[in-house]
Parts: sequence; C-alpha cells; structure tokens
Amino acid sequence: MSEERHGTRRSGGPRKAQEIFDATLDLLAEKGYEGLTIEGVAQRSGVNKTTIYRWWPSKGALLGAALIGARQLDFTPPDTGSLTGDLEALLHTVMTLLTTRPASDIAVSVLGAATQSPELAVHVKNFFADRIALEQPVFDRAVARGELPADTDTTLLMDLLAGAAWVRVALRQLPLDEKDFVARTVDTVLNGARVRT
Amino acid sequence: MSEERHGTRRSGGPRKAQEIFDATLDLLAEKGYEGLTIEGVAQRSGVNKTTIYRWWPSKGALLGAALIGARQLDFTPPDTGSLTGDLEALLHTVMTLLTTRPASDIAVSVLGAATQSPELAVHVKNFFADRIALEQPVFDRAVARGELPADTDTTLLMDLLAGAAWVRVALRQLPLDEKDFVARTVDTVLNGARVRT
Repeated sequence: MSEERHGTRRSGGPRKAQEIFDATLDLLAEKGYEGLTIEGVAQRSGVNKTTIYRWWPSKGALLGAALIGARQLDFTPPDTGSLTGDLEALLHTVMTLLTTRPASDIAVSVLGAATQSPELAVHVKNFFADRIALEQPVFDRAVARGELPADTDTTLLMDLLAGAAWVRVALRQLPLDEKDFVARTVDTVLNGARVRT
Repeated sequence: MSEERHGTRRSGGPRKAQEIFDATLDLLAEKGYEGLTIEGVAQRSGVNKTTIYRWWPSKGALLGAALIGARQLDFTPPDTGSLTGDLEALLHTVMTLLTTRPASDIAVSVLGAATQSPELAVHVKNFFADRIALEQPVFDRAVARGELPADTDTTLLMDLLAGAAWVRVALRQLPLDEKDFVARTVDTVLNGARVRT
C-alpha cells in the first residue's frame, strides 16, 4: 500500500496523522465509542489536543478519517492472476480482520456506535465505499481476462462474500474451518454471477 | 407461529415468560447490554425478581431465552410454493428486522455485547442455530420439488443471503431499494447453488 493512501496526501492532516489514527482505533477497541475522547487520543499519540481539533472538529470526524487512514485496517488488494484466487484472498482477509484483535473489536464497536450516531454512520458508509473502490481493480481485471461479464454487479458479489464471512464468524461463531469455507463460498458466488437466467 | 414456539413449552419458564422476554428485549434496545439488569426486567414486566432468577440465573441466560422466545424477533418460515419465492420472503424478513426498531437495535446490541461476554456469545450462537433450524423446511421442500440438489450446503446459502442484507443495510447503509436487491441477491445465490463445477 503506497504512502498516499495514508492520511496526509488523501485527505489532509497533521504531520503525525498516522500516530493519531493508531491511537484513535486502539482506544476505540479498548474503550468503545463512548469511551473514546479526543483528549485520550491526544495523550496516547503525544499530539497536542488543539492540533487534533484543528483537523477533525469531532470524534466522529476523527474516527471516520482513522478508519480509512490507519494501518490496523489497511489492506492491499490481491492480484493473483485469477478472479477465483483474488476473491479467495479477499475473503481470507475479511475473515482474518473479523477474528483478530484489535480489528475485530474495532469492527464491532464501530458498527454498534454507528447506530447511535448519525454523524459516525456517514463516516462508516464512507469507509465501506472506500473499501469497495479499493477492490474494484480485482473485478476490472477479471472482466478484461474474460472471467466475468462486463455488466456484473460487483458490489453485490462483495456484499455476498463479506456478508457470509460476517454472519458465520461474528454472528454464528462457527469455527473458522477457513480454507474449505473460503473455497466453497467463492465458488458458489462466482457460479451465481456467471449464470444468466 | 404456534404457541409452543414461545418460552413455556419450548424451554420451560414461568407463567408470564412472554412479558419477561418482551421487557428484556425492550430494555436491551433502550439501554444496551450494560444497562440491562434483571431488576429492571422485573420492574418492567411486573414479575418478581426472585421468580426470574429461579428460571434464569444470569442476565446472559435470560437474554438467550428471550432472543429465541420473544415476539419481537419471531418469524414464520414462508411457504410460497417455490424456493425463489420462499428465499425472497426470508430475505425480505431479514431486511425488515435489520431496518425496523426495536429489532435493529436489539440485533446490533446483542452482537456488540457477545464480543464482551463469552456466556452471551453461546446464547447468540444458539439463537442463530434456532433460526437455521426454523428455515430448514424451506430447503427440504425445495429438494423434494427437485429445485435444489439434495447435497446442497443450505447453511451457506442462508449465510450468503442474510450476510448480504447485513452488509448492505447495517454496514454500508445503502438505501433499501429492496425489491430489486432481494430479487437479484436470491437469483445470484440460487444460480450459484445449482451449478456444479
């Protein structure tokens, strides 16, 4: 992942943006959204509180920037040479995020808080839009290779893959059994995407 | 939904089990898991605290019973005569639960709390197992009608459908646009389930 993905180039930010983002997500994982304060982020990151407020006027805005810019939730879209390989790698990444702390705590805390805060809800929506945009090259290459019809609803495919992982791991808490689950899920979704009824 | 789905017949419970379950889920939606207490449930339901403790020794156990037994999360599995019709009805139900208060607040609160409480996590797992069991006749009838191979992984199909709804509505907060989304999602998943590679 190139440097321009992080904070400063993409959305503007102070020199120590990465430290601020890291502190924000660490505190969220530890204390939840209620316990997250800009004062706490200032202490943890060693950046002056007024500097943080200058860039992000609320903790909702700061968390929104941290979700997109922080290392903990960063990922590089795969390029394995086949759509099946790429989607298996993407699903593997989602499963790992949802089962590894602190990313799993962050995901659940953010989701819970978004239902209470309309401002945060907008930032969560932007985060997922950012992820969908990052994944788009995987589908563009698949269309170019003739692996997928050009008019495929690729957002639906990602919702099916990520959603199955979410339900299985976070809601139903089944054992990961990951290799088989990943292969069967990608297989079913890709077969479904290729059939025209 | 027949009476035996509720509390008393299924898992044993006091005479006013339904009122206790309703109060439990209402308080969860209002105050979150942290704010849920058996004392509060006793006050809201008008049932003596010691009676509640006799049946459910902890708030995790009480919430687990309420998730399965309460009216707010109740649903009748559809029987439209076709698998496509049944799955569209099921997905419609999931979308409605995830976008209608208090069910949507309950779902998010329970998920958040389950990551903090291993005891509650077991009850959440049981809740989803109960739902999967309720949905099984839909698939059994489809196999009997020749609409689906007998060895289909029906749990994966439900994870894909419910997961796509969850990601779209709860995480990405896209407008419901429900009719088209439901039809396209069921179409993709069923096509995927029918292809043998």
